Amino acid sequence: MPAIRRRALLTGAFATTLSAGFLGATAGARAADAAPPGPTLALARWLVKTRYAGLPAPVRKEGVRTLVNWLGAALGGSSHEAVAHAVAALAPLSGPAQSSLIGRKERFDARTAAFINGIASHVLDYDDTHLKTVIHPSVVICPALLAVAEWKPVTGADFLAAQIAGTEAALRIGNAVYPNHYDVGWHITGTAGVFGAAAAVGRILKLTEQQMVFALGLAASQPVGLRESFGSMNKSFNPGAAASAGILAALLAANGFDSSPGMIEAKRGWANTVSTKQDYREITEGLGTRFEAALNTYKPFPCGIVLHPPIDAALKLRKANKIDPAAIDRVELKVHPLVLELTGKQAPADGLESKFSVYHAVAVAIIEGAGGLKQFSDRAAKDPAVLALRDKVKPVVTPGIHEAQVDMTIVMKDGTKFHQFIEHAVGSVEAPLSDADLAAKFTDLADGILPAAQAKKAMDACWNVEKLASAGEIATAARSGT
Amino acid sequence: MPAIRRRALLTGAFATTLSAGFLGATAGARAADAAPPGPTLALARWLVKTRYAGLPAPVRKEGVRTLVNWLGAALGGSSHEAVAHAVAALAPLSGPAQSSLIGRKERFDARTAAFINGIASHVLDYDDTHLKTVIHPSVVICPALLAVAEWKPVTGADFLAAQIAGTEAALRIGNAVYPNHYDVGWHITGTAGVFGAAAAVGRILKLTEQQMVFALGLAASQPVGLRESFGSMNKSFNPGAAASAGILAALLAANGFDSSPGMIEAKRGWANTVSTKQDYREITEGLGTRFEAALNTYKPFPCGIVLHPPIDAALKLRKANKIDPAAIDRVELKVHPLVLELTGKQAPADGLESKFSVYHAVAVAIIEGAGGLKQFSDRAAKDPAVLALRDKVKPVVTPGIHEAQVDMTIVMKDGTKFHQFIEHAVGSVEAPLSDADLAAKFTDLADGILPAAQAKKAMDACWNVEKLASAGEIATAARSGT
Repeated sequence: MPAIRRRALLTGAFATTLSAGFLGATAGARAADAAPPGPTLALARWLVKTRYAGLPAPVRKEGVRTLVNWLGAALGGSSHEAVAHAVAALAPLSGPAQSSLIGRKERFDARTAAFINGIASHVLDYDDTHLKTVIHPSVVICPALLAVAEWKPVTGADFLAAQIAGTEAALRIGNAVYPNHYDVGWHITGTAGVFGAAAAVGRILKLTEQQMVFALGLAASQPVGLRESFGSMNKSFNPGAAASAGILAALLAANGFDSSPGMIEAKRGWANTVSTKQDYREITEGLGTRFEAALNTYKPFPCGIVLHPPIDAALKLRKANKIDPAAIDRVELKVHPLVLELTGKQAPADGLESKFSVYHAVAVAIIEGAGGLKQFSDRAAKDPAVLALRDKVKPVVTPGIHEAQVDMTIVMKDGTKFHQFIEHAVGSVEAPLSDADLAAKFTDLADGILPAAQAKKAMDACWNVEKLASAGEIATAARSGT
Repeated sequence: MPAIRRRALLTGAFATTLSAGFLGATAGARAADAAPPGPTLALARWLVKTRYAGLPAPVRKEGVRTLVNWLGAALGGSSHEAVAHAVAALAPLSGPAQSSLIGRKERFDARTAAFINGIASHVLDYDDTHLKTVIHPSVVICPALLAVAEWKPVTGADFLAAQIAGTEAALRIGNAVYPNHYDVGWHITGTAGVFGAAAAVGRILKLTEQQMVFALGLAASQPVGLRESFGSMNKSFNPGAAASAGILAALLAANGFDSSPGMIEAKRGWANTVSTKQDYREITEGLGTRFEAALNTYKPFPCGIVLHPPIDAALKLRKANKIDPAAIDRVELKVHPLVLELTGKQAPADGLESKFSVYHAVAVAIIEGAGGLKQFSDRAAKDPAVLALRDKVKPVVTPGIHEAQVDMTIVMKDGTKFHQFIEHAVGSVEAPLSDADLAAKFTDLADGILPAAQAKKAMDACWNVEKLASAGEIATAARSGT
């Protein structure tokens, strides 16, 4: 049987120290003429041959929306102290000024810029989400791709195709091991994301199929991120480091550095090592026809996804009714258990803690009619009106309420009741943010970082990415001091 | 109970997005005044307070031997094509010329230099081994430490203390998860090694205890290397990338970037995510009195450890007897199963494949009376005399023969028999290479890379590291063109 013989010959014990990568890949490609290629080879083959023109229009469109949302998130996070610390640490080691830091004046080598921009775009928890895997794909792939695109110019159409192809790689690999991989403790954004960054960058470096196999193998060797880091700067470190690792993998492969064939699926490869579940059909089935990248969603609120239904309900009730917060007796919430598990903080002390409080989130949404950055600020967390109302928020774990749902009843002191059931929260696949919503979010995030006219120009560069002569224009439009 | 309360307060669901790292660490340190600290904190505390003067003399001595052996391995590998590819890939992105490439003319920023030197020192499979875990500690820790020491000068004594402390961290963390962690597929040299690099570099960056906790946390977020990469350049990539990752972790922590407390032992932390076995006593028990770093061993032959007993037996028989290879009828070998599993290649085509052939290794050792780089060359693999003899090598898996043992009988055509049993192969803890052996190995590896006088000077810098005013002198002594 060819597959077995191929493994025996080319991997593990009988492989030679230095030449097996090349040998294996050649023979693997030969075997693939007869038998179906393994997932690593199948994915590499698709990654190098996919062209912009062949991508369905809705997939392209979602790619553009992903890019707009990502750049906004990166601008919003660019002034965060975690970013400042990372810049201070790496400025002395950075290479030539190849690539811009989003929202900042510094220019670093492509790998360092990708690392910093990855941190910036994730640090506010205001990015995108592939809900099937809780991967935030853009925060690994876009920093890597844009940093390299600024250094090695590429058309906007090729850039978008690379972004979509890389996103597809990351999400499909994530699907293959989710949920076991996430449950055991991996921050899947970094572990699956590194493949996406390597794939996207590998495309604009014009890797051959064989080089792409090696780039995926070198990416597999660098999973980044543990869930225990949640609640510290280390969380946003993970996508930054994964972006940088993806660039390294692609650059090495482009320069003749090899890996083993089949690093995703081999016995001592990635999937078997990092997960107790491996479903390789998730990687190969429908590749090029069914797009996970089209299922990306964008956070309407800068907090964990479980708070989105309660905030959505509160905003809808406030919009539809005239409600005096001081006249509220209580707010009854029927919720999924995860809401209290993840966001059960009853008395958050500051803006950061308030992101983990369903009590705060509901109260501030009712009072201010919004759920943006300002509603999770120190100011909001200390507002006496919010403090008074948050004690009246009464979440009850209720069987039958799904994660994406909430059932809210505002009971006024006079007995009046306002009821709202949320089936799919705003920002979900079923109730996506509109382009106008994304634009408003971008503008809000860029406020205070870039002058309004420049922010508009940077956002427009994203909306029009397909027409750009050089995608690097997005980065130069979004850096500060230009 | 303080420990439980600490976890509930500081990790997981109720932690805030950005401040929990600092909050957690402070409270963690407070709790630790009453209860024993967790392994991350205990290790960090020991790492920052350990001083050169407090290290036992035999431990220091083994540290020096580790350094000599490492520098030789790095010189030997410095001209390898894998190194050349990595240099070509990263030269365009490198920062200032802070640190030397061993055996080469280029100078790169510290992180990039550490990456390249890590590849160089592992690529020949001629480095060191902690036999309990099969970690090759020096190839991650020394590249990171030396690159930073050249950039930020430190005395030789402080350098050696940092190297030993980092080695101790990596080996103890490895012990805590071995063998399950290795068995599932991790290249433990990279996954445990990154802690060692972060710890060693963190010491010379003078991290506080709190910063060291964060450096270990950021290291935990970056495990590098899968066993499936064995047999490709990706194998030597792993220690290089881990060295670079360790520097990144320490640099960030030094600049105020935080992580979560307890990243090694927390529920969704490193050990639970990467292994089904966790024995934290391996990390904390006897810290500062019992030294894993003193158990390091050095490869006498540039090949996998299972070939060392057969080569040792062949060399001993050749030395003790006058044996005409042409008059040999057969070589009977009683071996452990791993010998055939890992090195069962009967007809290796070139020098690289010959490292995976017990048949070649025994034949060439009998004929040439050596087992060095020249015996695993293309020339040796194609020598007609070796080819004739290797077909007469007859390994038989034999119950009762341990991994470190071999039982060899050379049967001559006239019926004469020469017998040798190896209980502990040369290079093991029980039969270590002498200082003279290490010096000879170094000289052999440096041959053709540096002029003999310079090689001697570079080696002497290692032997005398404790007296150096600046440890960076080792790097400048070992670069080419000086």
